Amino acid sequence: MDKLGEKLRIKHELGRALLGEFVGTAVLLLLINSIVAQSVLSRGKVNEMINLNIGIGLAIAFAVAICAKLSGGHVNPAVSLMFMTFGQLTPIAFVLYTLAQTAGAFFGSAFAFLVYFDAIDDFDGGVRHVIGPKATASIFASYPAGYLSAFNGLIDQIVATAIFCLLIAHITDKRNSYPSWTQPLLIGASFAMIGTAFGLNCGYPVNPARDLGPRLFTLIIGYGADVFSYRDYSWFWVPIVGPFIGAVIGACLYQLAIGIHTPSDPIETEVRKYDVATSQELKPLTAT
Amino acid sequence: MDKLGEKLRIKHELGRALLGEFVGTAVLLLLINSIVAQSVLSRGKVNEMINLNIGIGLAIAFAVAICAKLSGGHVNPAVSLMFMTFGQLTPIAFVLYTLAQTAGAFFGSAFAFLVYFDAIDDFDGGVRHVIGPKATASIFASYPAGYLSAFNGLIDQIVATAIFCLLIAHITDKRNSYPSWTQPLLIGASFAMIGTAFGLNCGYPVNPARDLGPRLFTLIIGYGADVFSYRDYSWFWVPIVGPFIGAVIGACLYQLAIGIHTPSDPIETEVRKYDVATSQELKPLTAT
Amino acid sequence: MDKLGEKLRIKHELGRALLGEFVGTAVLLLLINSIVAQSVLSRGKVNEMINLNIGIGLAIAFAVAICAKLSGGHVNPAVSLMFMTFGQLTPIAFVLYTLAQTAGAFFGSAFAFLVYFDAIDDFDGGVRHVIGPKATASIFASYPAGYLSAFNGLIDQIVATAIFCLLIAHITDKRNSYPSWTQPLLIGASFAMIGTAFGLNCGYPVNPARDLGPRLFTLIIGYGADVFSYRDYSWFWVPIVGPFIGAVIGACLYQLAIGIHTPSDPIETEVRKYDVATSQELKPLTAT
Amino acid sequence: MDKLGEKLRIKHELGRALLGEFVGTAVLLLLINSIVAQSVLSRGKVNEMINLNIGIGLAIAFAVAICAKLSGGHVNPAVSLMFMTFGQLTPIAFVLYTLAQTAGAFFGSAFAFLVYFDAIDDFDGGVRHVIGPKATASIFASYPAGYLSAFNGLIDQIVATAIFCLLIAHITDKRNSYPSWTQPLLIGASFAMIGTAFGLNCGYPVNPARDLGPRLFTLIIGYGADVFSYRDYSWFWVPIVGPFIGAVIGACLYQLAIGIHTPSDPIETEVRKYDVATSQELKPLTAT
Repeated sequence: MDKLGEKLRIKHELGRALLGEFVGTAVLLLLINSIVAQSVLSRGKVNEMINLNIGIGLAIAFAVAICAKLSGGHVNPAVSLMFMTFGQLTPIAFVLYTLAQTAGAFFGSAFAFLVYFDAIDDFDGGVRHVIGPKATASIFASYPAGYLSAFNGLIDQIVATAIFCLLIAHITDKRNSYPSWTQPLLIGASFAMIGTAFGLNCGYPVNPARDLGPRLFTLIIGYGADVFSYRDYSWFWVPIVGPFIGAVIGACLYQLAIGIHTPSDPIETEVRKYDVATSQELKPLTAT
Repeated sequence: MDKLGEKLRIKHELGRALLGEFVGTAVLLLLINSIVAQSVLSRGKVNEMINLNIGIGLAIAFAVAICAKLSGGHVNPAVSLMFMTFGQLTPIAFVLYTLAQTAGAFFGSAFAFLVYFDAIDDFDGGVRHVIGPKATASIFASYPAGYLSAFNGLIDQIVATAIFCLLIAHITDKRNSYPSWTQPLLIGASFAMIGTAFGLNCGYPVNPARDLGPRLFTLIIGYGADVFSYRDYSWFWVPIVGPFIGAVIGACLYQLAIGIHTPSDPIETEVRKYDVATSQELKPLTAT
Repeated sequence: MDKLGEKLRIKHELGRALLGEFVGTAVLLLLINSIVAQSVLSRGKVNEMINLNIGIGLAIAFAVAICAKLSGGHVNPAVSLMFMTFGQLTPIAFVLYTLAQTAGAFFGSAFAFLVYFDAIDDFDGGVRHVIGPKATASIFASYPAGYLSAFNGLIDQIVATAIFCLLIAHITDKRNSYPSWTQPLLIGASFAMIGTAFGLNCGYPVNPARDLGPRLFTLIIGYGADVFSYRDYSWFWVPIVGPFIGAVIGACLYQLAIGIHTPSDPIETEVRKYDVATSQELKPLTAT
Repeated sequence: MDKLGEKLRIKHELGRALLGEFVGTAVLLLLINSIVAQSVLSRGKVNEMINLNIGIGLAIAFAVAICAKLSGGHVNPAVSLMFMTFGQLTPIAFVLYTLAQTAGAFFGSAFAFLVYFDAIDDFDGGVRHVIGPKATASIFASYPAGYLSAFNGLIDQIVATAIFCLLIAHITDKRNSYPSWTQPLLIGASFAMIGTAFGLNCGYPVNPARDLGPRLFTLIIGYGADVFSYRDYSWFWVPIVGPFIGAVIGACLYQLAIGIHTPSDPIETEVRKYDVATSQELKPLTAT
């Protein structure tokens, strides 16, 4: 089996990364869409907001973790844009990451639909609705609360993503010495918090691929053009554009207000030298 | 006491493993059945879905932890099947593990029944019901939502178990260097997440022993043959067969899409050599 | 200040331990009683069961943590009995620990009463009730659900404490190598789980001092003898006796079924030796 | 970019610290006010108490974490007062920290208002209310429950802050050897617990800047002088004065009852010395 693995291994580093982002985002959206479905289809009885916050937070943590070693574990084009800003991703890789993430999100949604096919049919009588009491489109993509203007929605997505990216920048900054196994978990925890703070206006997408991929999926499985034309095409672009703007703001805010002022942790390795003859410690010649 | 322990210690490694799986699964089912009982018997008032998710997640974490050093900590025949697929368990050990787990699950259910005997009697007036407003059979084994077909139930169990096993494979993969004390906790956290995503259709059993053991227990304590004959015998096998299929799919998915492409962590041990005469560092002859 | 500390330091080790248990249990009961008060006085609106589970779990974690280095961090006479069974506490120390814990619990309750004095007055019009719609005695000590017999209550407390002590034995067992900072947190997490599984019958006291201390406090502040005479004196002893029995069962169960069969972790220290002349690694003469 | 960072870096240590406290408290209040807004504006449907507890706990954890290396991560004047008591902050630095925290809290509130501008307008019809069914002032600052006297409110804030500061003192005490990455998370967890225990009376502010900064913000954006004059000016000072008193009590309680009696952890570094000629271990001349 190890031999087979050796043979099937993708040699091209970017290829491995794109596979990682595709699989990670597919798993993420299968989970997120299923979590929201459990809430929508039970009219909030089986999953309340806290279940969504914790479930989606853990989904992000594990989705990031499983592809972290292949691609860095972004599963979000806004996060990829931040790392491009930091010079850790080339523009071409950013575009390819975004495509892989959006395709993965589309694919993951399809599996969530498969899991809840009977339940959706029971809920809406077999006719897909975007709005109204039998609406199920919000299982997949975000729709704004009635009171929310597109402008305030844009602010919501910019602020939420700026905070999320500021925290990712903090967590992944080597100066802060978080053990590597904790980083995906902390990113997930920060997203759970985002959900308790910025969930009311439009359901905290905070991820262009997480919103666009499933919206495309609903377009082709019978929800119709309404998923894009809702409010005269004035909504669907908000959770795409907002997170990209927010990611750049969050990245800059972190670096300018915190990162550049942060001293590095001293290296924690301690090496002591002894003269084997006398058993006395030798003073180091150079400071570590 | 240490001497007594030495004397009573089971010398046979597989014997120790089977004892571990029996005890671990018994503790798990005592906990899971009690957690669900607290919800069913209070009609959801004392335990809401989030209590089930978190309680059961912690139950898995601790059940895995207490037997991890004796048996690997599977407490689930589907997980054992995955490790057999990985060549870490022989087929005969897999069969014996499954028997020990199912017996443990049966035994654990009996204790949950003991704890909630008065409460069950108060709830159903002393007559056990499988369905209807006084039903308590769902405390022990899973029953599908009214809308759910056996086919969609099978998909639900396959997908939920595939995700669960994919994450266990990730967490226990040595290439990912999770500290060993974190692994049972992360497995528990992943199961809490499974419960927020795949709990609506049939209560996320995701474990053949967890479902069959308690179902056998309800058969003999007065719920009658209905626990198996429900829906003309078209349900009870779903949470047995589904998880086995899902475990193999999850295992293969992890290896093919992630595992074989994952580079190993570099060994983090740092050894520096010094010339005791000059106190100067010596360059290593070979890279670590 | 360091000098002052040196002067005030209690030199007697058992004295320090008793102070630790007193303070730890006082903090624990101030927190637990306040958490339950927030639920009872808001009729469940401000604290639902999940808040109780998580809040009390964290209260145990921090109460154990703050006195762990002074006394071992038991804050529970049943846990002290388990460690006496393991030979880690003398019988006389066990008795003194129990007294310190009960006094601390009494003292902590008084502070919770102080915090919620206005709210209790508002709730019951200034007349303390043990039962009925204006009852507030359950803020402090446990009272059984209407259906629960004393016998089933005893089983409940035995089983819940056995599981809790089995897990404490697992967590604190050196063979399992949990980092010491994680142990109070894991004990707290296990108690949160206990609350989701064994909270319905009588509110999971699982701690004789946690129940008796506050019950004594309610006796003297106007709830009257009913707090002991409730159900013809057939209840108050259950959450005292049950946990002691359960602790011994849990301790034995852990050692016999798991502990004695568990291999020790290999020591993880790695020491490499080099010949400074040739820079070649030297083979160790003895295995570590 | 590294060069730019080098140029923009604030060289003055106190300047860096004040920037850190400003940014940390601004992020904290943006999050806390948004979390409470999500609850108030949905009348508790989208955020229940558990979401507030967990969301605010994580907000504290991350706010502390992002500025920990610049300023120690207080984000709370009461915590700064405690560290002044411990001699780790000069009086002048304490005053400047308090100003930076209050300014940050004011600034963060403004962003939360921006995010929920449409929702607040929808909720109150565009007219800001401090009390009544359309009140939204409690999104920003604390207001007491109807039954609560100022005296009992003061006790509430003193006790809650004393416990919070006692736990911070425990967590940050070097004798307890918590890994540095865990400390902000544990402080956040302790605050989540505070919220389950002391949230009923007046919403657990436990932080003078967290209450005064947003109250000032509401003063200038149309809520009017009522935010201070409420109850004849008998409330607004309670969540300012109470936490300062509680912090000093908690700090002293920790040191006198626990800290000074706590033995230090033995240093865990293990150094073994070998004679390179014989490969035999050398006995250390002095005990570590």
